[in-house]
Amino acid sequence: MNVTEYLQTWSASYKADMLDNIMPFWLKHGLDRRNGGIYTCLNRDGSLIDTTKSVWFQGRFAFTCSYAYNHIEQNLDWLAAAKSTLDFIEHHCFDSDGRMFFEVTASGEPIRKRRYVFSETFAAIAMAEYAIASGERAYAEKALNLFKDIQRFLRTPGILEPKYCETVHTKGHSIVMILINTASRIRAAIADPILDQQIDDSIALLKKDFMHPEFKALLETVGTNGEFIDTINGRIINPGHCIETSWFILEEAKYRNWDKQLTDMALTILDWSWEWGWDKEHGGIINFRDCRNLPPQDYAHDMKFWWPQTEAIIATLYAYQATKDEKYLAMHQQISDWTYAHFPDSDFGEWYGYLHRNGTVSQPAKGNIFKGPFHIPRMLTKSYVLCQELLP
Amino acid sequence: MNVTEYLQTWSASYKADMLDNIMPFWLKHGLDRRNGGIYTCLNRDGSLIDTTKSVWFQGRFAFTCSYAYNHIEQNLDWLAAAKSTLDFIEHHCFDSDGRMFFEVTASGEPIRKRRYVFSETFAAIAMAEYAIASGERAYAEKALNLFKDIQRFLRTPGILEPKYCETVHTKGHSIVMILINTASRIRAAIADPILDQQIDDSIALLKKDFMHPEFKALLETVGTNGEFIDTINGRIINPGHCIETSWFILEEAKYRNWDKQLTDMALTILDWSWEWGWDKEHGGIINFRDCRNLPPQDYAHDMKFWWPQTEAIIATLYAYQATKDEKYLAMHQQISDWTYAHFPDSDFGEWYGYLHRNGTVSQPAKGNIFKGPFHIPRMLTKSYVLCQELLP
Repeated sequence: MNVTEYLQTWSASYKADMLDNIMPFWLKHGLDRRNGGIYTCLNRDGSLIDTTKSVWFQGRFAFTCSYAYNHIEQNLDWLAAAKSTLDFIEHHCFDSDGRMFFEVTASGEPIRKRRYVFSETFAAIAMAEYAIASGERAYAEKALNLFKDIQRFLRTPGILEPKYCETVHTKGHSIVMILINTASRIRAAIADPILDQQIDDSIALLKKDFMHPEFKALLETVGTNGEFIDTINGRIINPGHCIETSWFILEEAKYRNWDKQLTDMALTILDWSWEWGWDKEHGGIINFRDCRNLPPQDYAHDMKFWWPQTEAIIATLYAYQATKDEKYLAMHQQISDWTYAHFPDSDFGEWYGYLHRNGTVSQPAKGNIFKGPFHIPRMLTKSYVLCQELLP
Repeated sequence: MNVTEYLQTWSASYKADMLDNIMPFWLKHGLDRRNGGIYTCLNRDGSLIDTTKSVWFQGRFAFTCSYAYNHIEQNLDWLAAAKSTLDFIEHHCFDSDGRMFFEVTASGEPIRKRRYVFSETFAAIAMAEYAIASGERAYAEKALNLFKDIQRFLRTPGILEPKYCETVHTKGHSIVMILINTASRIRAAIADPILDQQIDDSIALLKKDFMHPEFKALLETVGTNGEFIDTINGRIINPGHCIETSWFILEEAKYRNWDKQLTDMALTILDWSWEWGWDKEHGGIINFRDCRNLPPQDYAHDMKFWWPQTEAIIATLYAYQATKDEKYLAMHQQISDWTYAHFPDSDFGEWYGYLHRNGTVSQPAKGNIFKGPFHIPRMLTKSYVLCQELLP
């Protein structure tokens, strides 16, 4: 492989997909010029099929715009879209207790509030990234304060209603991993020891409790001391999720001058999760596996969703940057070829989100409450940056 | 078609599938002879893959055993299994506030409680059906008291935590339809005007608010006054669910000497829902449609689950009994042929639960928290009874 040529090709491709496809699609069809913020429930052609607004995506889109502004080009439309969406968040997405909603109406009336803090983590990274883009330090401080709120919500018994009865003691991978990325994105805008401490704590927890070498897997749910729980839920492997964690850790390793322990940990998670996730029959990263190879319960277990593929594209490129081992470039090529062969919609732009195992489209909408402008543009921005860094 | 021969064949087939396949499978692999009650998380071969017990299925299995005892044969093993499961329910599945849990451990420790009353409805029909099987009137009274509790939980603000914010006013098809069947099964054991009133109220509500002729559809979620809500959730059609409702109403119509208005209403729902649900390309009843033909959001929207097929088998047979129109026998043959060609597992017994749209198996487990001994044996029992009634 001619590595330079390979990276040049992808670098140009990422930038072009961002400038000519993904960002124009969402600015044209998703941006709510009346109320501010972003709609994500768009049909294949971009037409609006539901005005319900995902609060996760208000934060995710404001982050996306700011992140692209900071790393691809200083496009003022992107900055304005980020500001509009942050204003919508600040005016409409917080409840009086400081916690955020999960869904609101087009004009910002609350629809649903859930028992976790992901809305808050996405709003926090949006504020931090916008602080860098706009130079307005107040947003960095808002991000840090929201991060402190998140920690308080998580630590104070009684604030977040538990999903299970009080006799059940489990913990989940999602919140541990998301806090690495949240703290890391905020740290890029404003320094605070609690951010570094959170990253240290999360990584230590992943290593001690969630990585299970006996299955060569990072598990989604374990006991409070990391015990393997031999139930359908306890055996779930979400390979895309684990691969996302691996590049969050690689990012931290790089921040620490490629700390060897962190790098090794991240590569182990990537290698394990690729082995579970890569579909040797049809290609692509599959949704769910069971660590004892029993039948997974989730109905979508054998489908191919867009976001695990984007996480794998970032992670393999990062792993190559960490190791210069061409094995990871070969994996990057595998996942990129499969992804670009199946997900982009050449007629109407953007990508499909939900494919059957064999790569055929299950449903053609461009967005819903869970798919919108985040994983794809984050991948394009991050991967563009990585290619640029890797090119001579 | 030789109708008598057709019905004789199916009558024998239903009874044989019940006696030789379904009941032995669950009594052998599912029945918990140590703690009482039933396990449902069984792999393809019947081996236990999770000891978590579904509270829905404790009630559903106790009902299944009693219902089969009352209508197929007076098998004492079935009666004993029902008693064991009812004892487990009474000892372990109620919280101190009278509400029931959703999941418990093998020995009955609570795992999860949810914000609705389906565990209670299934326990109530189990108690009522067991009262008929055993002749113990106390169980009928327990069923009636539990029904009164269910009504109280639903009517008293503050008992069931709302899913949405207080400004959101919607109502769902599920609870309205399940109360028809719950009241009807209890009424078979014990008379009380509140049962008839509930059936009247539920049917009136379905007619006034959930049936939407402009879409020829019964919708899953509407506004408090039956308004169509033009969102992804508001547009959902669950054809199997609607077909189940249609035979609940046919059952009530028959109870009222084939009341013409009820019969017509039920046939309208069946015809509408069959049109939305029958997959003209691959056969079988599909999971979800959108009433404006937009992309449904549920990841399993184009899959074929076992239970919509069993509801369609009952409903078409009932519709034939109501009308003697051979159109419904032709539909019965269509759905039965497709179902029996794809769902039964000829190697290990019982049926698969989750097929892809084209009828291939998505995952081969025989049960989980949502699939167990209920829809299939209920269909076999009910359809056996209908065939017997229809035969000269």
